[in-house]
Amino acid sequence: MTRRSGIITLTSDFGTRDAYVGAMKGVICSILPSARIVDITHEIRPQKVLEAAILLEAAYCWFPPGTVHVVVVDPGVGTKRRPLAVEADGQLFVGPDNGVLSAPLSGKRVRAHEITETSYELPYRSDTFHGRDVFAPAAGHLASGIEVDRLGADISGFVLLDLPKPVVKDDRIVGEILRTDRFGNAISNIPRSLLSRIGPGGYEVVASGQSFGKLRRRFQDVAEGESLPLTGGTGRIEIAVNGGSAAERWGLQAGDPIEIKPLSSDDRDA
Amino acid sequence: MTRRSGIITLTSDFGTRDAYVGAMKGVICSILPSARIVDITHEIRPQKVLEAAILLEAAYCWFPPGTVHVVVVDPGVGTKRRPLAVEADGQLFVGPDNGVLSAPLSGKRVRAHEITETSYELPYRSDTFHGRDVFAPAAGHLASGIEVDRLGADISGFVLLDLPKPVVKDDRIVGEILRTDRFGNAISNIPRSLLSRIGPGGYEVVASGQSFGKLRRRFQDVAEGESLPLTGGTGRIEIAVNGGSAAERWGLQAGDPIEIKPLSSDDRDA
Amino acid sequence: MTRRSGIITLTSDFGTRDAYVGAMKGVICSILPSARIVDITHEIRPQKVLEAAILLEAAYCWFPPGTVHVVVVDPGVGTKRRPLAVEADGQLFVGPDNGVLSAPLSGKRVRAHEITETSYELPYRSDTFHGRDVFAPAAGHLASGIEVDRLGADISGFVLLDLPKPVVKDDRIVGEILRTDRFGNAISNIPRSLLSRIGPGGYEVVASGQSFGKLRRRFQDVAEGESLPLTGGTGRIEIAVNGGSAAERWGLQAGDPIEIKPLSSDDRDA
Repeated sequence: MTRRSGIITLTSDFGTRDAYVGAMKGVICSILPSARIVDITHEIRPQKVLEAAILLEAAYCWFPPGTVHVVVVDPGVGTKRRPLAVEADGQLFVGPDNGVLSAPLSGKRVRAHEITETSYELPYRSDTFHGRDVFAPAAGHLASGIEVDRLGADISGFVLLDLPKPVVKDDRIVGEILRTDRFGNAISNIPRSLLSRIGPGGYEVVASGQSFGKLRRRFQDVAEGESLPLTGGTGRIEIAVNGGSAAERWGLQAGDPIEIKPLSSDDRDA
Repeated sequence: MTRRSGIITLTSDFGTRDAYVGAMKGVICSILPSARIVDITHEIRPQKVLEAAILLEAAYCWFPPGTVHVVVVDPGVGTKRRPLAVEADGQLFVGPDNGVLSAPLSGKRVRAHEITETSYELPYRSDTFHGRDVFAPAAGHLASGIEVDRLGADISGFVLLDLPKPVVKDDRIVGEILRTDRFGNAISNIPRSLLSRIGPGGYEVVASGQSFGKLRRRFQDVAEGESLPLTGGTGRIEIAVNGGSAAERWGLQAGDPIEIKPLSSDDRDA
Repeated sequence: MTRRSGIITLTSDFGTRDAYVGAMKGVICSILPSARIVDITHEIRPQKVLEAAILLEAAYCWFPPGTVHVVVVDPGVGTKRRPLAVEADGQLFVGPDNGVLSAPLSGKRVRAHEITETSYELPYRSDTFHGRDVFAPAAGHLASGIEVDRLGADISGFVLLDLPKPVVKDDRIVGEILRTDRFGNAISNIPRSLLSRIGPGGYEVVASGQSFGKLRRRFQDVAEGESLPLTGGTGRIEIAVNGGSAAERWGLQAGDPIEIKPLSSDDRDA
């Protein structure tokens, strides 16, 4: 049994100007008035499942064991796509079986259950808003201590998105830009931990065919307004501008290629 | 006496980039540090009282009994418009007497009181920010267990907005678009429950003079990119595009007419 | 010893569409699962330290004693700028030593400590995201009851921004516009309390060289659509339009000069 932290996080594409998120919070509070609800983001672009999966991956690991994470980006609502309750990594997750939960589902010791037990749903399940009618109530019950297997039978064959993975080829790491953040940093899928695979230190980063020079540690390793590659807050290699926006300056965007190779010894001395 | 859930919801037009909402939350926490504050939205367009009333109506019913709902869209702040504390439907509400509370005030067993008891306000009441000086403290005290009648005398003749109501005419339901949401769904004021009044099933929906065909259950009942009418997450009939924005494609907006009529038997077979 | 309210506020330039704020909240909840986290704003413009300092000043004083305020606008992250933990005014603050904490640091009975004790940080401190690795953990520990002096040695010589101060010259108060809010009100740095210094009543306000006439009490003291100066929700003199946006109509913005002088007796009668 996993203990519960009493914390429920929300990630969705509902935005913050409609009543959808409020309704979900109301349903959660009705089941567990003591719930501490934490918004991750509601600014996922409408129906962008992969974007939600990437956001969840970046956020969930920082929460205490027994936290329930609700992810609702659900273009297939009302169809036969299954609603899921998952336990993985000591945490709990609910969301549609469309790949939004790919990160935890790719982990070890995953228990995945289809939510079918109607006594843990709202009395009336609409065809268009399972965030409120299915996922919020499931989250409230899980956070109250209910086990995932109470919500329905265990399943396999769930949808796993092909989260783009970096590849080590000879002495290079080849990856891609995953997203650009509010500051205009262009964040790749290459974790810093992979660098040791291509050498002991001193790396050059090329994105969209252009060299951004030597991998740096801090924004301030270059002058104000200069571009640089560095390890960002997500632990992944990113292209940034010290005091500016790399996305704007260089037009970098999700899907653009990025490559890391050892610095030649000449450059290392430079 | 209504028991209290310890939850306070906030709805306003303050946005999220200024310190106004933070100040209100600080005042609430100073009165009741254990309060669990839930934002419904702060993105009501500036001074759009009707929009706030509609949002509140869509959100409040999902919260547990004894929740306190604060609504501050208050173009008349500093004038003689009265500050209200209301108990209705097992829940509590505070806000200006300008119609923002029309939904709960239109219900049954309503207790409405003017907030006049200065010991439940901040020591200094400004002329421009009653959200902080009057409504937040009232909410904190109500959530602490104070009864509405302690805040001031009961009143009647409060402002009720003419929330646009659908009308059944012969075999048609005539209503209007209430708002468009983040996805571009154009949501009407016609609840699904009204459909039985015009026949047992099979309905055609016309909005702004154009037919959107047969009322559907799910987005996926039409091909990707196609338009359709369906019952949205709010329980009301809306015009949508599967995977797109009806508001953008058709220019639908609040106030546009919408009409529902039985399908002819020919169409029903189609 | 300061008691703790269990409340932690967050102010940053991270926006709400990335996972940065979620990661900070996760770290806080991991240290203190019972923390009640309140967002002030995450919409500070990227790296605008002064804007964050002004927002914090407007918000923190409304919270109960023993609240922990986290402010992360941190263009110097990864450099030698010091991370601070501050106790002032009965409240606690964490953030970089770049001026974001200028308001509390300018107060009385300030205890300022550099955060150096690594046992109160995350095990791995990145060079690019101290919000998560240093400030969030420090906040969690402070809210748990740890004293500021446990985090590191006390320091002096911290950075204080020159928060623009109004000046009384002869019979005039000269200040500047600090910011414009969501409604388009142009808020100055002149507190209402300063008015008595130039006379007993009746004031004229000039901004950017243009007279906005007599200082008013309420928006409704002028006709709908008319401009006016009044005391805003922050307690400071501002230029507003009743039912409109002064920033849009007059192009007022941060830094613009504003001046208040006694009304001539002619105008007072008008």
